[in-house]
Amino acid sequence: MKATQTATDELKTNRVRLRRRPTRGHYDYETVASILDATFLCHIGFTVDDQPFVIPTSFGRDGRRLYVHGSAASRMLKQLKTSIPLCLTVTLLDGLVLARSAFNHSMNYRSVVVLGSASLVEGDEKLTALKIMSEHILKGRWDDVRLPNAKEMKATSVLALDIEEASAKIRSGPPLDDDEDLDFPCWAGVLPIVQTTGQPVPDPGSRSETPLPDYLMPPKG
Amino acid sequence: MKATQTATDELKTNRVRLRRRPTRGHYDYETVASILDATFLCHIGFTVDDQPFVIPTSFGRDGRRLYVHGSAASRMLKQLKTSIPLCLTVTLLDGLVLARSAFNHSMNYRSVVVLGSASLVEGDEKLTALKIMSEHILKGRWDDVRLPNAKEMKATSVLALDIEEASAKIRSGPPLDDDEDLDFPCWAGVLPIVQTTGQPVPDPGSRSETPLPDYLMPPKG
Repeated sequence: MKATQTATDELKTNRVRLRRRPTRGHYDYETVASILDATFLCHIGFTVDDQPFVIPTSFGRDGRRLYVHGSAASRMLKQLKTSIPLCLTVTLLDGLVLARSAFNHSMNYRSVVVLGSASLVEGDEKLTALKIMSEHILKGRWDDVRLPNAKEMKATSVLALDIEEASAKIRSGPPLDDDEDLDFPCWAGVLPIVQTTGQPVPDPGSRSETPLPDYLMPPKG
Repeated sequence: MKATQTATDELKTNRVRLRRRPTRGHYDYETVASILDATFLCHIGFTVDDQPFVIPTSFGRDGRRLYVHGSAASRMLKQLKTSIPLCLTVTLLDGLVLARSAFNHSMNYRSVVVLGSASLVEGDEKLTALKIMSEHILKGRWDDVRLPNAKEMKATSVLALDIEEASAKIRSGPPLDDDEDLDFPCWAGVLPIVQTTGQPVPDPGSRSETPLPDYLMPPKG
């Protein structure tokens, strides 16, 4: 199935190969992993009765294994655990690329597409996977919280997807206008887009004042 | 096909109905439109040879009609213009919901799922649609730029998807812990997540200094 066997193309197949702008495509594990680690939100696509569904969810990563979780009663989890084909996509939007021509406008972004199918995680791996997902979202949180009890574990499904067939796509840098547009009198450049966290908002239902943990402190500047 | 006919449930069908947490579901056009207008990035799901693909792209909205565009040579555009079933999903992540129990951790978000199929846009509507998409991403930009010529129009495909079957899902507010966890000694609350723009970066290839347009000026505070 693999179209190539080189180290840098190890995740490449014909299905994930970039047709357009092939120079923006990357098929090595390190690039894919670095993009996956820059966020915790993915969109999962799966098909039911010929209708694709795309659902946002969080994920975690343990080496080449990705984890997602949800209610055991969720439609998505129930479908995915039957190992139907899925697509897990991660997108980081880095900026608007404002060219002089409408046509050459673009976006700076890093995205990853992983194809495969999921399997239900059980036994000891299940709690480990939940910790990995929690730490992927907010490092340090897991050790602070009340861990899941047996009833909660039963109500939760965890699925694993291995990174075997994947592509990354990266666009960065300034606009690329045609030569004849370079004198067109409009501002051109990049408007950076960043995702940041705001000031933590304590639960108004708290019965006592609990100090803000280190992992929620704003970075020292 | 519509499961209900009330004004607030006008976009509801059995396929988009929320199974879990039904109180988080909304099926009225106004709620769906307000979430769509808060971003310009969507993820589109489509199925080829039983394999779902989820691809990020920008979109625009003109009333109940959504537009997406891309290279006429793009695999996604070529597939979608054959009117295969698709799913267009938009997700706005608003915060991490940090409960006292691992199990009750959640996210605050607003998401929309639109099901349907796309049709190729041609004639006068095509340029109008490109303007609508451009203005949806950055209001004011279209009047500044060099508009598409005939060759560029030919190289671009525009697709329309009407909002007829859709759901919105919204989670907001503090964590919802079980009563018996309220004295557990860990900080609980919400870590807000916001997307912001940075300082515009002029194209280093600019031949002359062009003033920053009003629509790129930082909001006065």
